[in-house]
Amino acid sequence: MKRRELMASLPLLAAPGLRAQGLSAADEQFALRLREAALADTTLAYQLIEGLCTEVGPRPAGSANDARAVAWAQRELKRIGLANVRTDEVPVTAWQRGPASATLFAPHAQPLVMLALGNSVGTPDVGVDAELVYYPDLAALRADTTERAKGKLVFIDQKMERSRDGSGYGRAVMARIAGPVEAARRGAVAIAIRSIGTDRDRLAHTGAMRYDPAVARIPAIAVSVPDADLIARHHARGTPMRLKLEMRNTSGIRAMSANVLAEVPGTGLADEVVMIGAHLDSWDQGQGALDDAAGVGIVSAAAAHIMKLAKSSGVQPKRTIRVVLFANEENGFDGANAYGAKYKAVKHQLVGESDFGAGKIWRVRSRVAPDMAASVATLAQWLQPLGIEAGNNMGNPGPDAGVLMRANLWPGIELSQDGTNYFDIHHTDNDTLDKIDPATLPQNVAAWALAAWWAAQLPQSLGPPTL
Amino acid sequence: MKRRELMASLPLLAAPGLRAQGLSAADEQFALRLREAALADTTLAYQLIEGLCTEVGPRPAGSANDARAVAWAQRELKRIGLANVRTDEVPVTAWQRGPASATLFAPHAQPLVMLALGNSVGTPDVGVDAELVYYPDLAALRADTTERAKGKLVFIDQKMERSRDGSGYGRAVMARIAGPVEAARRGAVAIAIRSIGTDRDRLAHTGAMRYDPAVARIPAIAVSVPDADLIARHHARGTPMRLKLEMRNTSGIRAMSANVLAEVPGTGLADEVVMIGAHLDSWDQGQGALDDAAGVGIVSAAAAHIMKLAKSSGVQPKRTIRVVLFANEENGFDGANAYGAKYKAVKHQLVGESDFGAGKIWRVRSRVAPDMAASVATLAQWLQPLGIEAGNNMGNPGPDAGVLMRANLWPGIELSQDGTNYFDIHHTDNDTLDKIDPATLPQNVAAWALAAWWAAQLPQSLGPPTL
Repeated sequence: MKRRELMASLPLLAAPGLRAQGLSAADEQFALRLREAALADTTLAYQLIEGLCTEVGPRPAGSANDARAVAWAQRELKRIGLANVRTDEVPVTAWQRGPASATLFAPHAQPLVMLALGNSVGTPDVGVDAELVYYPDLAALRADTTERAKGKLVFIDQKMERSRDGSGYGRAVMARIAGPVEAARRGAVAIAIRSIGTDRDRLAHTGAMRYDPAVARIPAIAVSVPDADLIARHHARGTPMRLKLEMRNTSGIRAMSANVLAEVPGTGLADEVVMIGAHLDSWDQGQGALDDAAGVGIVSAAAAHIMKLAKSSGVQPKRTIRVVLFANEENGFDGANAYGAKYKAVKHQLVGESDFGAGKIWRVRSRVAPDMAASVATLAQWLQPLGIEAGNNMGNPGPDAGVLMRANLWPGIELSQDGTNYFDIHHTDNDTLDKIDPATLPQNVAAWALAAWWAAQLPQSLGPPTL
Repeated sequence: MKRRELMASLPLLAAPGLRAQGLSAADEQFALRLREAALADTTLAYQLIEGLCTEVGPRPAGSANDARAVAWAQRELKRIGLANVRTDEVPVTAWQRGPASATLFAPHAQPLVMLALGNSVGTPDVGVDAELVYYPDLAALRADTTERAKGKLVFIDQKMERSRDGSGYGRAVMARIAGPVEAARRGAVAIAIRSIGTDRDRLAHTGAMRYDPAVARIPAIAVSVPDADLIARHHARGTPMRLKLEMRNTSGIRAMSANVLAEVPGTGLADEVVMIGAHLDSWDQGQGALDDAAGVGIVSAAAAHIMKLAKSSGVQPKRTIRVVLFANEENGFDGANAYGAKYKAVKHQLVGESDFGAGKIWRVRSRVAPDMAASVATLAQWLQPLGIEAGNNMGNPGPDAGVLMRANLWPGIELSQDGTNYFDIHHTDNDTLDKIDPATLPQNVAAWALAAWWAAQLPQSLGPPTL
């Protein structure tokens, strides 16, 4: 069917008659059985998450634990019955956290709970000891055309708002990513920011920052929210503050990592791929449970359920359904870039990634060719009993999948998880297995299985999306 | 009135006629106005807590910050209008935390979030590297008559239950206090315990432990709850575990601290004292906000409200109402012991302490002479509109006040706070100002003011209590 004809049939597509799109009765029956089986399985996804957190733990790209995670993933993806389990090597430039400490003098010493931001240089051996200059947010620093920050340590007190869709993160995170360069441009010798997080725990949130080759590389840290509050209270009193920072980090470590791939083989359209992904690496804090063992468990279990039902029913997917566990999402998207380069010529029907914790999915959004957007109604109909509402065609398929969508114009799917509490934990030492609620996993697995199955069986091509 | 006569009048006391006990109409009117004024004041207690957390911060006994806290308290108690502000020096034997790290090998390395227990010795310079032997709780260790722990590192996985009255702490805390000696008796080279806490944060809970002079002093640590979970998961898998511990602490530091005293002077019975206390010291983690800046703010504000109303109304308390901010509650009760020794001969009508965070008070319990227990009904009646229920005569007046009650047979009062969430934070880095809910403070201040006023005016002596 050409797109123009499909457009003409839109009213039909929104109605229950699924075969209007060319999905067979068998496809639909498979979907309903798949949903039932995935919802009934309360163990597989959690078991995978528990294994990765327990047997591997934190796994920053390029580390020994990252290599352990790659070995673990290959073993587990085979164990759960997926086919073509393999790795694609990914060279990474790793960054390694060293010992660090920060003390606030206001004027007497108070130790601060802090973490280096990812990619930050260390301090000179004697440390940095500088007057603290306070900015309420990144905008205030950007607006500063004076010499106020020169020779000082810039503090940005950027606050992050809690929200279900995580949009508060988008509004706050540039303080972390771009703050160091903005501070260095104004002659600052170091920068500290309020952690980009929604909690009140005495744990700092790390995360990547970027240097500008044309600007001095200054040490960059995040302090915990209660420590930022302390600085704000001293600032409100007008107390002069000094901060002493000692930090040793190592940048530019050449190392190898790998994307791990596994498949449910396709049949008639086996050369086309439906990619459901997650990332295997994590920050060095915590156990990378919500970020992103959860996604690893969810998409792996989703594919395993399709494989199992395909075997027992004799109905195989048309397209190949591929699980990709990406290398180094956290600090450079090396895995996504390598995957995009390697499989550029392979037609991808849909890409999506589970990387927003383990909360319940509340919405489905697509990013497909505008004239294919209405076709998502079928998937939305399958998802509706899971408490998932239909969204628009402005979906964001996740960090690695988003890189691929933009680079190769592959269509994307977003299964929006409830992220209300996600940024309490994100990139902190608190990202441990106990933060996973096993009760919300089956719904996630069922939704990803349905999305993959739908895309695999749809006769039409979903792309290219409009970016 | 003799006690026998009082007993005979019990039915009257439970009735609203307050003067049946000899409290005057003016006493009662004062109480009602006091309650109103304290409830209307939403700032004073919080201001004190904020000041101690911000301007001093953590203040372990004998430290430079402990001395700063003593100076801070004298200044603030004067500023809020109390009389006879002074210090009583208290020699303390301090313990200082040094750098520490612990790594679990199961078999590959996973870093543990841990803290030394208070008073723990350090490890030899090379550290301790030993096989971990798992005990589900202290009882299991105590029941072990084998040589299983010999040369090993004992791990006690004692879990603590959440409860409003904090009773879960009493049932779990001996694993921390007595576990090290029990492990050493069985030849263990070190001990680690699951943190005594109700949270799931990646923060360890410190707290005091005790050595037995007849048993080897082994290094003792608590790991965070998620780390204890990790150990338990490896144990469930049957994975052999080794733990490497490096720790430097300093014990036996001779230092001076002080109790800080302030008063609302009495009149007719000015030689008798009603003592409302809190402790000024804290552990070295966090800011000592809930433990016990909260109590410092609450009892100081309570006394300040009595002073203010006494001045404006011209009605003075009969007995002296004394605020005592105790030294070194956390690690030896040095302040309480020094106070008890110094004021042994001074008649104390009542002692009580606010040291259970900043939660709402839900109950009043006394520990007075059995034949005076019924007199507490008057106080309970005043407290009832604050949502406080009447309890029995088995009250625990708090840690320092409890020491004094037992040592000198002084009667005690317990204003039971809701401690449901207290042990999420207790003795961790998370004990920071943001954990204080300013909304619950006025009720606490009002209750302590009423208790002090009641005891100051009651014609009868409340003691001695039955222990």
